[in-house]
Amino acid sequence: MDNGGFCNNNYHSGSSDDELVDISDVTVNFSEDVPPLDLDYSAGGCKADWRPSNSPKLIDLLDDTVPGIGTYEDFNTIDWVREKSKDRDRHREITNKSKHSTVALLFSISDAFSGWLLMLLIGLMSGALAGGIDIAAHWMTDLKEGVCLNGFWFNHEHCCWASNETTFQERDKCPQWKTWAELMVGVSEGSVNVLNHFMYVSWALLFAFLAVILVRAFAPYACGSGIPEIKTILSGFIIRGYLGKWTLIIKTITLVLAVSSGLSLGKEGPLVHVACCCANILCHFFTKYRRNEAKRREVLSAASAVGVSVAFGAPIGGVLFSLEEVSYYFPLKTLWRSFFAALVAAFTLRSINPFGNSRLVLFYVEFHTPWHLLELIPFVLLGIFGGLWGNTRLGHYPVIEVLVVTLLTALLAFPIEYTRMSSSELISELFNDCGLLDSSKLCDYSGNSGGTSGSVNATAANGLGARLAGPGLYTAMWQLALALVFKMLITVATFGIKVPSGLFIPSIAVGAIAGRLLGVGMEQLAVHNHERKIFRGWCSPGADCITPGLYAMVGAAACLGGVTRMTVSLVVIMFELTGGLEYIVPLMAATMTSKWVADALSRESIYEAHIRLNGYPFLEAKEEFRHKTLATDVMRPRQSDPPLSVLTQSGMSVEEVERLIADTTYSGFPVVISQQSQRLVGFVLRRDLVISLENARRHQEGVVSVSAVLFTECDPPASPSAPPAVKLHNILDLSPFTVTVHTPMEIVVDIFRKLGLRQCLVIQNGRLLGIITKKDILKHMAQMANRDPESILFN
Amino acid sequence: MDNGGFCNNNYHSGSSDDELVDISDVTVNFSEDVPPLDLDYSAGGCKADWRPSNSPKLIDLLDDTVPGIGTYEDFNTIDWVREKSKDRDRHREITNKSKHSTVALLFSISDAFSGWLLMLLIGLMSGALAGGIDIAAHWMTDLKEGVCLNGFWFNHEHCCWASNETTFQERDKCPQWKTWAELMVGVSEGSVNVLNHFMYVSWALLFAFLAVILVRAFAPYACGSGIPEIKTILSGFIIRGYLGKWTLIIKTITLVLAVSSGLSLGKEGPLVHVACCCANILCHFFTKYRRNEAKRREVLSAASAVGVSVAFGAPIGGVLFSLEEVSYYFPLKTLWRSFFAALVAAFTLRSINPFGNSRLVLFYVEFHTPWHLLELIPFVLLGIFGGLWGNTRLGHYPVIEVLVVTLLTALLAFPIEYTRMSSSELISELFNDCGLLDSSKLCDYSGNSGGTSGSVNATAANGLGARLAGPGLYTAMWQLALALVFKMLITVATFGIKVPSGLFIPSIAVGAIAGRLLGVGMEQLAVHNHERKIFRGWCSPGADCITPGLYAMVGAAACLGGVTRMTVSLVVIMFELTGGLEYIVPLMAATMTSKWVADALSRESIYEAHIRLNGYPFLEAKEEFRHKTLATDVMRPRQSDPPLSVLTQSGMSVEEVERLIADTTYSGFPVVISQQSQRLVGFVLRRDLVISLENARRHQEGVVSVSAVLFTECDPPASPSAPPAVKLHNILDLSPFTVTVHTPMEIVVDIFRKLGLRQCLVIQNGRLLGIITKKDILKHMAQMANRDPESILFN
Repeated sequence: MDNGGFCNNNYHSGSSDDELVDISDVTVNFSEDVPPLDLDYSAGGCKADWRPSNSPKLIDLLDDTVPGIGTYEDFNTIDWVREKSKDRDRHREITNKSKHSTVALLFSISDAFSGWLLMLLIGLMSGALAGGIDIAAHWMTDLKEGVCLNGFWFNHEHCCWASNETTFQERDKCPQWKTWAELMVGVSEGSVNVLNHFMYVSWALLFAFLAVILVRAFAPYACGSGIPEIKTILSGFIIRGYLGKWTLIIKTITLVLAVSSGLSLGKEGPLVHVACCCANILCHFFTKYRRNEAKRREVLSAASAVGVSVAFGAPIGGVLFSLEEVSYYFPLKTLWRSFFAALVAAFTLRSINPFGNSRLVLFYVEFHTPWHLLELIPFVLLGIFGGLWGNTRLGHYPVIEVLVVTLLTALLAFPIEYTRMSSSELISELFNDCGLLDSSKLCDYSGNSGGTSGSVNATAANGLGARLAGPGLYTAMWQLALALVFKMLITVATFGIKVPSGLFIPSIAVGAIAGRLLGVGMEQLAVHNHERKIFRGWCSPGADCITPGLYAMVGAAACLGGVTRMTVSLVVIMFELTGGLEYIVPLMAATMTSKWVADALSRESIYEAHIRLNGYPFLEAKEEFRHKTLATDVMRPRQSDPPLSVLTQSGMSVEEVERLIADTTYSGFPVVISQQSQRLVGFVLRRDLVISLENARRHQEGVVSVSAVLFTECDPPASPSAPPAVKLHNILDLSPFTVTVHTPMEIVVDIFRKLGLRQCLVIQNGRLLGIITKKDILKHMAQMANRDPESILFN
Repeated sequence: MDNGGFCNNNYHSGSSDDELVDISDVTVNFSEDVPPLDLDYSAGGCKADWRPSNSPKLIDLLDDTVPGIGTYEDFNTIDWVREKSKDRDRHREITNKSKHSTVALLFSISDAFSGWLLMLLIGLMSGALAGGIDIAAHWMTDLKEGVCLNGFWFNHEHCCWASNETTFQERDKCPQWKTWAELMVGVSEGSVNVLNHFMYVSWALLFAFLAVILVRAFAPYACGSGIPEIKTILSGFIIRGYLGKWTLIIKTITLVLAVSSGLSLGKEGPLVHVACCCANILCHFFTKYRRNEAKRREVLSAASAVGVSVAFGAPIGGVLFSLEEVSYYFPLKTLWRSFFAALVAAFTLRSINPFGNSRLVLFYVEFHTPWHLLELIPFVLLGIFGGLWGNTRLGHYPVIEVLVVTLLTALLAFPIEYTRMSSSELISELFNDCGLLDSSKLCDYSGNSGGTSGSVNATAANGLGARLAGPGLYTAMWQLALALVFKMLITVATFGIKVPSGLFIPSIAVGAIAGRLLGVGMEQLAVHNHERKIFRGWCSPGADCITPGLYAMVGAAACLGGVTRMTVSLVVIMFELTGGLEYIVPLMAATMTSKWVADALSRESIYEAHIRLNGYPFLEAKEEFRHKTLATDVMRPRQSDPPLSVLTQSGMSVEEVERLIADTTYSGFPVVISQQSQRLVGFVLRRDLVISLENARRHQEGVVSVSAVLFTECDPPASPSAPPAVKLHNILDLSPFTVTVHTPMEIVVDIFRKLGLRQCLVIQNGRLLGIITKKDILKHMAQMANRDPESILFN
């Protein structure tokens, strides 16, 4: 038998002391919790301390007030198990104290409700910010075209509301609203349009310029959508400042600027980022969440639901988005809280009422006409289109300058009506079905505009003429086709530029245009061939044959699905966005097709691609690890490497430990009984070790380089003249995760994913042989997928 | 150094052989998968076999065709890790083979799509069955009242459809439909009602009698809702026959009988059970799912979504129900497939169209009037009522006989209109808002029924009179109040009787009655006090003040939430059930209140209480383990017990192993290097060991009682005259899960939950000290909660 260590049988030492609990409290705990169980495993040399209640409290300067212990460095991965243990210890402590005093009881109750309070605050703050962003963006978008004489702070619509002279029909024409050309004296009739275009482009350039400068100067983290980074953060990565107050301020301002500049980008992704910033900042007011990285991530998961909730007025969709797409650890408790926060936010936004329609539903559709089974074919076609769209190499041009894109967008978008209007307006118009009073060109059917279509033919006679396309519709179709090409190209060019930008709305717009085109096509096909067998029964006199708005909706879902690979959450978002609960089957058919097609071409969603390109350490939960490698193939050290750097539980001096720290860059060291036996005792983190040693050197008397470093609770037999030992038992994790060398990597990957580990020790027959970190796993996975393993940049 | 074992350094032996892989295939795998890594850990005594490719294939009779190895016994818990590994091995094998031949490629593609095909079949079968159940139940419910002369197979509604003489107003009165009294000759006018009541009760008793007899005789598993058992099965428990064909047949028939008998029970829980039976039976046609318990559970998770989908026509709600309430392991892939299956099922049901309204929405509500912020107060009150309802001791009377309950139900329900009608009809009427043409007594407002209310007072003059209660409404209110009391009592008595019974519809009915009562009360309050400040603005002339139907909806959600403790899924189900997407805030407020109130009174939902009462080994994922005990407090053996029964990797004879098996009842044994060192090598399951030894005794030549049992891959130095050894290396799990003695139980519980473990070994400093099984954990948790630890009955 090996006997390299002392008191190696003290396995009843009470608490896992890495959790920094006050031992006196633990004692109280034990007397209540532990079932009558009078064991005495007294085989070891250190019998007295097998229960903390029996052991004298260790005189130890390294108590839990040493600052920095238990925290993480920037660009490092957290240990979920440790964080959750910390929180449970905290909870236990509060519960215990609450039994002794009323104040503590009140504190305990307030602590229990602090989560809900935090959710309420996040909902209110995010809802208010989103409302503000909507109002500001609306105003600034209109500012590109003109200004209100009643007060420059009115947008076009408000300006004309204030005016009494408007009728319902010409809501957006009133004398108080002047285009820039109208304001200037001496502008000839012919050059009005050119001048307006010039002003439009100038304003757009100014907004874009301001946005990019602000991002560059103050908060580089504010660019892009932020969802890939939030996904990474939620999986347990630390990026300091990514969710800070500067990012929040700059992202909010530049988001307004970017949207107003008319670039083909949406505000949903950035709104998720904004909501997460709010959550992170609000977490600072609650100790429970400030101090614990795992608890904070629960809040952030809820905040990402809030972001989508305010972006689309879709609280359920937001929660499902967070669950399906963003979150890593999503317990049921978080589900309920997310829902609550998302509701509060949606409700706040509705109270602010930025769109003036007091509906929670953004693009409310009025139609409820049934669809035909055969229509599934065009719906599936739209799904295929969406899948292909999801695989265009979005974001491949990150260096193209913002101003060039803005200039191009502003120059080219102005001439076509459908590209000039904001994406939301466009989508709203495309989703709409044509009522009798509709003045849109998309609704210019021959039945409506009696003047233009002279010959009332046989089809019209049997009541179907109302759905024959008029000349306005044909024009609209050409313009839509042009708009589709333009939108697709400009969206590809826009994504990846250095301003806040989301992908949802542009993708929805592209899909809606394609869908509407196909829908009108199908409609005309059905009207013209209504006697054919397959179309028989589609068109009944007096009713619509086909609802082109539904096609737009389906196309939008397909394109969004192709880009993000969402399914259930996407369908729910589309419901909440449109209120069209009846169209679940068409939406689902298109979404599933889109996902299949997109997955067949590339397994990664746009967010995952982004994460990979940035080298973030993200362990994807969607795909299973399929290779038949073993833990031994992945663990360090490899055969050619020097042996594993370990500490021994006693017998090393301060100097030796410091040298080991200086010579290596590992983030943690296993502690073994002795170098000879290599039998595992525990694991200690580099950061904790460095801080503790520095602290001991500074504050503990008599510590010199030859002082012994002890990771045991009991003193080894030492000569009385020896300098006092540095006791580091309290930073030692006595329950490190271990796997055997034979464990298949698929199981190891599963353990890492599900438990949120940072590292895992590899043993065989009780002997420590190596270590596997999350980075090792990601490198191994990259290698197995024939990618460069060095693409994983962080720990 | 201890050296009790042979070749204890062979830790590079390739695959974890417990997974029953053909080693020749593994070799192919390795040459592709393993990165260039030329290690040679040749420290051990058995160098040749560190890679299977180098080792000669062992001559071993125990190959993977030994039947029974890798299966489980009834009432045992599965090992998720092992099952998932098996599936991954299977997948790898298919993928590898598919590279070599076209047939194998086709097989691999069909294998990949078999999951979707299976979902399609489940959706179709469940949808068809649900449609059949609806139609049959409808017909038999009407049979209690009378019969159709045109053909006894018509129900009341169909009978009168066929008749030409009916008008829209008197849809349900036609000469072809005869009540039983009308059919009999010589019945006096006065006794018609009595006779009808007698027939009603007789039929009800007959149906209930048949139901209970069928359940008793053929399928005792068919009683109850089945959701608690399905929850347990999904968590990894084996109950053979619970999802078998007999259960399916009997449950389907008896469900129709029970519903038709008029008992206060719903068919949603049983429909979930029926859908799971369908899924389980269909799994038999797909090797992938038949052979793998984990894969089958993925399918069953989807099937429970299907069940709710067909019960309510709520596919999204069904998926969320499965996710929030039922499932244990729910990967994203299952989410998509569940959604698909739920959609197919809902679509199939809609095509069968059992309700004749061709809507997916069961209780479609027409109202879209806004609600007032102050109304949140009554909504929260309803939530409190729901929470209290969820804590009535439902199911405390399991022995009350079915016939007594049926008799009581039939006798007492007949006189009041609202209890006589089926729950679905009742709910539908309660949810509805009063239109102008509505003939329901609930809509008897003085404005509608000009004849009855004589005095048109001042209130009516300003347009609010239309909402003043008429005498019919007052009668209806009294009847509703009576119905509420009756429903509550009879539902409590009904739940737990030995016929298929669900709780959803009765709970919804109770909540809807309470809500409607409160709603009408609030309405009258607002109408009578419309000049008061707080009600100002609620009632505008010509419009409704308050929508009592909305209160019914909110009350229904609250009661259902109290019983099941669902939140998000419940709100989504309510949306899909009613189509009322605008009322998310009222619904959510009531649901959250209901959950809080119910949780404050008891943390368990009805299903969890049921699981606990039955002693199933279910490791609840919702609540965290909060006690500060360590692995050492839970592990076996305790101090007073005999030492842990272990096998050694070599050095034991067949007889010794057989004696160990006979002397103990453990389901598995750790294998150690030697009794002295207690250093862990692996773990072997009792069942596998018994089967393998029997097999060796029967088929391997020369095996006698003194033959050595070897768990190593290499031969120990044995004398040539010794009998041939039994090699059991292939049933040895070389990667058992281990924790240290210091690991806090909270972490151990977390590992068991998240990885789905069955047992875990406890080591200290490399030495095996004990074992923790799922049952040990559950017993420990029961003890900590001051419950009887012996209440956990199964392994």
